Amino acid sequence: MQGLFISMEGPDGAGKTTQIELLQTYLADKGYEIVLTRDPGGTVISEAVRRLILNKEYHEMCADTELLLYAAARAQLVQEVIRPALADGKAVISDRFVDSSVVYQGIARDMGIEKVYAVNDHALRGLRPQLTVLLDLDADEGLRRKCRQTELDRMEAEGLEFHQKVVEGYRFLADREKGRILRISATLPKEDIHAKIVLAIEERILNR
Amino acid sequence: MQGLFISMEGPDGAGKTTQIELLQTYLADKGYEIVLTRDPGGTVISEAVRRLILNKEYHEMCADTELLLYAAARAQLVQEVIRPALADGKAVISDRFVDSSVVYQGIARDMGIEKVYAVNDHALRGLRPQLTVLLDLDADEGLRRKCRQTELDRMEAEGLEFHQKVVEGYRFLADREKGRILRISATLPKEDIHAKIVLAIEERILNR
Repeated sequence: MQGLFISMEGPDGAGKTTQIELLQTYLADKGYEIVLTRDPGGTVISEAVRRLILNKEYHEMCADTELLLYAAARAQLVQEVIRPALADGKAVISDRFVDSSVVYQGIARDMGIEKVYAVNDHALRGLRPQLTVLLDLDADEGLRRKCRQTELDRMEAEGLEFHQKVVEGYRFLADREKGRILRISATLPKEDIHAKIVLAIEERILNR
Repeated sequence: MQGLFISMEGPDGAGKTTQIELLQTYLADKGYEIVLTRDPGGTVISEAVRRLILNKEYHEMCADTELLLYAAARAQLVQEVIRPALADGKAVISDRFVDSSVVYQGIARDMGIEKVYAVNDHALRGLRPQLTVLLDLDADEGLRRKCRQTELDRMEAEGLEFHQKVVEGYRFLADREKGRILRISATLPKEDIHAKIVLAIEERILNR
């Protein structure tokens, strides 16, 4: 069995967790052993870096530091978890991956996409998801949904303007990489979203 | 008054702390306001990253992660502490700086000098110390001195072969950048080492 690597992207509140659960069940039924992970996170070291990145008290964190910390967490996740799992023929589903850095740091923080790719090349060494699902949601609706859920972390606590740039950044990226990124409106019923994801996996990966 | 940026390098046990103290007194007598710092470290965020890097339990940390974490800590130190201090005309003395990454990650871990510079460019944005003092000490003597002092951290706990590569790496770098790096034998009496450092500061920086 060939390994399979799918990442789930989208602004906070878009419903990534729900779709990951549905996707997990679908791929397990297909016979895959599943590795669920999240970025930043997914290893002991990467989770420690995640806590550091998202710590609300670190309001003085500069953009370069943030970018490098995300890449550090990702490097460990790729080498400790994702590459070994893919080599074993498992299906890896990641809640966020490098596109989050491209959008949040490269576009919303205005650091530039090329700089983000340059730093992340040291973490990825060429690895990309075969399919990236973008759950597309307007920023105000995303924030409304998220505020109901939990206390906000350092990234979530950014203002509406930042989150609007995130949404536009995701749309820009999805247009640029249509072959990899599947953009679906997060306002659809969850079963409809799931059906679109399944269709894309079957058409683009399993039946190719 | 022009800002002054000096870094102190060398293997563990070479006596960096002692020389930093002597240098601090000398520069204060010259009228400088002094900022003492260390890399990794020197800011709340960078110290948190430092604890992560040096945590002995993280034996699974991969080389890319380590490199990116050092760069992240350094980015924060540069932007939060060093650049503002230099802009204010202060003298910054840093216990280690980017040369440590070049030597420990680039040479001793065999990642390549160019890769280390490429990642650290995002942290430094062109900043270099005006003078870097290398306290040169054979690896076996360095380890002997250090073992007497404290419990070893994750980097210090590397074997003799690693520390020999560190020493050779420092010597290589000092040869390559004679204009910036002053190599002094750490086996000299501490007053003699200090005198050489003072002479270099006067000749290379203050009286230029």
